[in-house]
Amino acid sequence: MALRLGAIVGALEGLVGGRLYGNGDLVITALSPLDSAQAQHLSFLSHPKYQNQLALSQAGCVIVSPAFKDLAKARGACIVTEDPYYYFARVTQLWRQTLPKPDNTVHIHPSALVSPQAVVHPSARIGPLCVLENGAVIGANSVLASRITIGQNCGVGDRCILHSGVVIGADGFGFAPHAGVWEKIEQLGAVRIGHDVEIGANTCIDRGALQDTVIEDGVKLDNLIQIGHNVHIGAHTALAGCVGVAGSATIGAHCTLGGGAIVLGHLTLADHVHISAASVVTHSIHKAGHYTGMFPIDENAAWEKNAASVKQLSNLRNRIRALEAHIKHANHPPSP
Amino acid sequence: MALRLGAIVGALEGLVGGRLYGNGDLVITALSPLDSAQAQHLSFLSHPKYQNQLALSQAGCVIVSPAFKDLAKARGACIVTEDPYYYFARVTQLWRQTLPKPDNTVHIHPSALVSPQAVVHPSARIGPLCVLENGAVIGANSVLASRITIGQNCGVGDRCILHSGVVIGADGFGFAPHAGVWEKIEQLGAVRIGHDVEIGANTCIDRGALQDTVIEDGVKLDNLIQIGHNVHIGAHTALAGCVGVAGSATIGAHCTLGGGAIVLGHLTLADHVHISAASVVTHSIHKAGHYTGMFPIDENAAWEKNAASVKQLSNLRNRIRALEAHIKHANHPPSP
Amino acid sequence: MALRLGAIVGALEGLVGGRLYGNGDLVITALSPLDSAQAQHLSFLSHPKYQNQLALSQAGCVIVSPAFKDLAKARGACIVTEDPYYYFARVTQLWRQTLPKPDNTVHIHPSALVSPQAVVHPSARIGPLCVLENGAVIGANSVLASRITIGQNCGVGDRCILHSGVVIGADGFGFAPHAGVWEKIEQLGAVRIGHDVEIGANTCIDRGALQDTVIEDGVKLDNLIQIGHNVHIGAHTALAGCVGVAGSATIGAHCTLGGGAIVLGHLTLADHVHISAASVVTHSIHKAGHYTGMFPIDENAAWEKNAASVKQLSNLRNRIRALEAHIKHANHPPSP
Repeated sequence: MALRLGAIVGALEGLVGGRLYGNGDLVITALSPLDSAQAQHLSFLSHPKYQNQLALSQAGCVIVSPAFKDLAKARGACIVTEDPYYYFARVTQLWRQTLPKPDNTVHIHPSALVSPQAVVHPSARIGPLCVLENGAVIGANSVLASRITIGQNCGVGDRCILHSGVVIGADGFGFAPHAGVWEKIEQLGAVRIGHDVEIGANTCIDRGALQDTVIEDGVKLDNLIQIGHNVHIGAHTALAGCVGVAGSATIGAHCTLGGGAIVLGHLTLADHVHISAASVVTHSIHKAGHYTGMFPIDENAAWEKNAASVKQLSNLRNRIRALEAHIKHANHPPSP
Repeated sequence: MALRLGAIVGALEGLVGGRLYGNGDLVITALSPLDSAQAQHLSFLSHPKYQNQLALSQAGCVIVSPAFKDLAKARGACIVTEDPYYYFARVTQLWRQTLPKPDNTVHIHPSALVSPQAVVHPSARIGPLCVLENGAVIGANSVLASRITIGQNCGVGDRCILHSGVVIGADGFGFAPHAGVWEKIEQLGAVRIGHDVEIGANTCIDRGALQDTVIEDGVKLDNLIQIGHNVHIGAHTALAGCVGVAGSATIGAHCTLGGGAIVLGHLTLADHVHISAASVVTHSIHKAGHYTGMFPIDENAAWEKNAASVKQLSNLRNRIRALEAHIKHANHPPSP
Repeated sequence: MALRLGAIVGALEGLVGGRLYGNGDLVITALSPLDSAQAQHLSFLSHPKYQNQLALSQAGCVIVSPAFKDLAKARGACIVTEDPYYYFARVTQLWRQTLPKPDNTVHIHPSALVSPQAVVHPSARIGPLCVLENGAVIGANSVLASRITIGQNCGVGDRCILHSGVVIGADGFGFAPHAGVWEKIEQLGAVRIGHDVEIGANTCIDRGALQDTVIEDGVKLDNLIQIGHNVHIGAHTALAGCVGVAGSATIGAHCTLGGGAIVLGHLTLADHVHISAASVVTHSIHKAGHYTGMFPIDENAAWEKNAASVKQLSNLRNRIRALEAHIKHANHPPSP
């Protein structure tokens, strides 16, 4: 786990550019954040707000944007690139290749249960104790970690990464109420997952009721996310942990949903909609933008008083109106 | 995957009634929503608000209520029944029987680990890589998908469906604080699940501390739900995804909890209580009805201003009171 | 499953003290809550608010604090101890030892997949269908239930309990946005879990991006919790079910987070911070205390009116200010 700085810059040059100022023979032994980096570490400045850390950092080399070139050169070696965070991402990928591989580098782990009617691309890797039911399809270079279930007829595209415990294609939650009981609606659709999708640990994507649940290319789902039946998630949208998307919701492309956000069923979100953490989307959003709905946290005693007032809010609004009317009337009394 | 319309109506007639208007020889190749149905598809109108779609639909046949019989007949074949959504649910069940079975149709999959002290009804099906500990009991015709754990002494009734990744009977979260550390309270109860219960993927139901956690007949739990120890959920109650029910809560029968709702511990909810998504139940609810508590979502800039005001709300209330008192006083000054 | 009362008190005396008043020969057949205890059951009064149940209880013996000694003696046998709930916790542990063991009492279940490069202490127990990748370390007397994944290089301390479905060391959620797509940041850190940690079913703890995600000694995590990359949780902190902690958050020691709470990324919580259920921590909290932020639940119709007013709140605040200014001006008109 050591790379010459010159080797790093050389390996990435064709892919992402970047210019080294300093000694390419410096041996890098780790990638580190600015505040804990040491003399043989490579670090990065991704956002101007951390610039105070730049001068103080002990990093052997720092990846910076052109705006910070002089500041960075003043303290030692640096790599200058238009997008330091993206460059850093590429460095992590290069670094990964120098590390020992995990055990599950076989095509299909012997403990995995792959239906003879499933189709797994020869370049894909299926980890220990995965279950692929009949009709499941796994694309080229996709990697399934351990203990993943891919249900009947569900498809995963190329270059996808699925983490442990993922369940693709469990039944959607569909019942018709009848005479006080819930009559099951059989879930006859499947799940279709595009290319370059990453799905976090223990996340669930239900099969559609009649048609398919669809996750488009480049979507990133964090851990413990629930995607209901018939949901459609547009390309390059990212959902943070613990998000829940109810059935038949349609989320656009290039959206982000913060952790714990909830999207109610049958709604539509336009492209480039950004939902803050823990916010509840209760109506369709047709305009790109940033939306939030969460009760501000406060000391409990203050919250108790304010929350009690929230329950009086409509009443308070009426009382303000009455006060306004009174004053208006006092200033302009009706003619006698 | 094709059924004559007459065969569908005939198969369901004894069970749910329903009368066909149109040609019973039409071959149905799929079940579809109104807006995407094609000429050989069977669709349904479950709610009057979708009636605009009825006239426009290309469906070969539509299931409707008597109120829409004329409208439906005017456009082609239809099945008239009192409860179209329930009828449709029954059609999906019929349709399911025509499909290829998933692989796990054996009684107990050879990869499942079933304790010799577990009791599995001969008609039940235990999927791949399930773990049934000693004393576990699985009732007649129940189906466990893949990778499910049923803990020691936990019981599942008849005709239940458990989806992949479910954990029944992990320890409840019980600790006594003592001298700054948490002392474990051993969880000595179990979990008892009634008949006709469906449990979604990766959902967890903890064993009771002293007595059992109880899920009554006909309860439907969606994915990624957490049910704490000693909880009691009444018959035919349905919980949507990502719900959390804290320990010792008692939820009545015929309740519904929306996605992401949280019920605090030791509370009681009456029968027929309906909680909106993402709402937090902080006190017992003794009256049937519909309850909600969520911060309305808004554009982030508007939210920021309003959320700041929420933290002033108790203060604002006092200022309104002062204004009211001032005006009252000004109108009725005390006698000199 | 029966112990003489005297044997229970004797076994715990050296550990936690406690004095029996009554007949030590009473045979205890179960531990029960006060309200359902019967003549051969041992119960406890943990909080004065339940004292009404004490006189009514049918329990054969009740564990009480000195303040309730007389009341308890008046109704039958009792054990008097400074901290009845802690004493009760110890009784449950004693009771557990009398019960049949679960099946997975072997060192490493034959169905578990343990990398030759993993290190499992000889006293640890690894349950069925667990996956331990290379470099994983499990400490002395730790117990992994079933179907748990411990990722590459992740370590678990001594005396830990991990429940079924846990995933330790999946990739953190790290991507650099670039030209409209998400470029993966390889997650090069690991997870380090201290001693005496308990982790609930299907909970996920992600590996760090560059450094390790750290869970300190004595931490208790309930089910379905998401811990993001680089998070640091201080000793003896407890998180209830469905909590989500975003990346790089630092939570102090002796904190508690209620069910469904969300902590945003890169925040710091001091020691002894207590967050109510379903509250969203949006800024660092540097002062010990109890913090809350949740919309109060109400009948839906009332909520609808109040929620609508919330969206007018900043406007209402301005109108109150205007009223105040008007009245001030009316009372103190500027000099002519």
